[in-house]
Amino acid sequence: MSAPHTDVEQVEAANTAFYEAMERGDFDELSSLWLTPSDLGVDEEYHDPADSGVISCVHPGWPVLTGRAEVLRSYALIMANTDYIQFFLTDVHVSVTGDTALVNCTENILSGGPAPEDGDELGPLVGQLVVATNVFRRTPTGWKLWSHHASPVLAETGEDDENGRNGVNGANPDDSPLA
Amino acid sequence: MSAPHTDVEQVEAANTAFYEAMERGDFDELSSLWLTPSDLGVDEEYHDPADSGVISCVHPGWPVLTGRAEVLRSYALIMANTDYIQFFLTDVHVSVTGDTALVNCTENILSGGPAPEDGDELGPLVGQLVVATNVFRRTPTGWKLWSHHASPVLAETGEDDENGRNGVNGANPDDSPLA
Repeated sequence: MSAPHTDVEQVEAANTAFYEAMERGDFDELSSLWLTPSDLGVDEEYHDPADSGVISCVHPGWPVLTGRAEVLRSYALIMANTDYIQFFLTDVHVSVTGDTALVNCTENILSGGPAPEDGDELGPLVGQLVVATNVFRRTPTGWKLWSHHASPVLAETGEDDENGRNGVNGANPDDSPLA
Repeated sequence: MSAPHTDVEQVEAANTAFYEAMERGDFDELSSLWLTPSDLGVDEEYHDPADSGVISCVHPGWPVLTGRAEVLRSYALIMANTDYIQFFLTDVHVSVTGDTALVNCTENILSGGPAPEDGDELGPLVGQLVVATNVFRRTPTGWKLWSHHASPVLAETGEDDENGRNGVNGANPDDSPLA
């Protein structure tokens, strides 16, 4: 049973490459990691009723972006507004089923915007706790991103804090018996 | 090319069934809509290095929940704290690739908690704008949920409001050229 091990390692490497491309601000590399319909052998000219391989992306607090044009434009925008970004990934979990892989991870993000106009230094650094669900698809040239959904964690688990912000319907992670 | 049409219709029906089970507070129905490893022919006793078919769920503002025990417990908790919930789905987009389907949708949620102890009426109703990425897997008994990730939309697109809350790195949907 070495094949699943190899799959997991390859998917983890693709997931890491995605975040490293963001850290380097390497837009071309980032673009190459996202799935195209032609990666799946789908003719992009022919209208596919199932929209095979159409990518989507949700940045924290954003609405859904669908299709390569919208998704890649958002990354160009974010890179233009970010001078420094680093991702410390924790709790990485991979589930591979057939030719699709689901990766959940926690993105501990440290980032800073461009310098203010009258200064030479970085904008202030901010930290963010974000969780992500990344869906990858197996292609002849490796695992490619089909979907990225990232969202802010509004309250920590494990705290006994009745003042935590609400999640769904007044239930929040602090109320959860999971902690 | 009628097969993809059928796939899309079946996936949309599975997605709708998921939200309707929540609206009815039908925990058994909800549980039956989530994937199990046995749906995929995977032996649950055997340790699978790729964790095939392991489900995950992110509620708005929550950390990641992984595996049936954690995920289903969270729904039991939410149902216990919710007397009324209604989902108005908009912008539903389906992408089917092989045996996996990706659904993005906007959940316009209206919900209310249990009545206060001294009253007979519902708790106050609250509205929430949430976006979701739902991943479904084809099984012999229909399309089943592999992953659900829902997150709050913190600023509307299309507004020209410099005071919108930040998304990633100071970029937010209001700054986006997509609006």
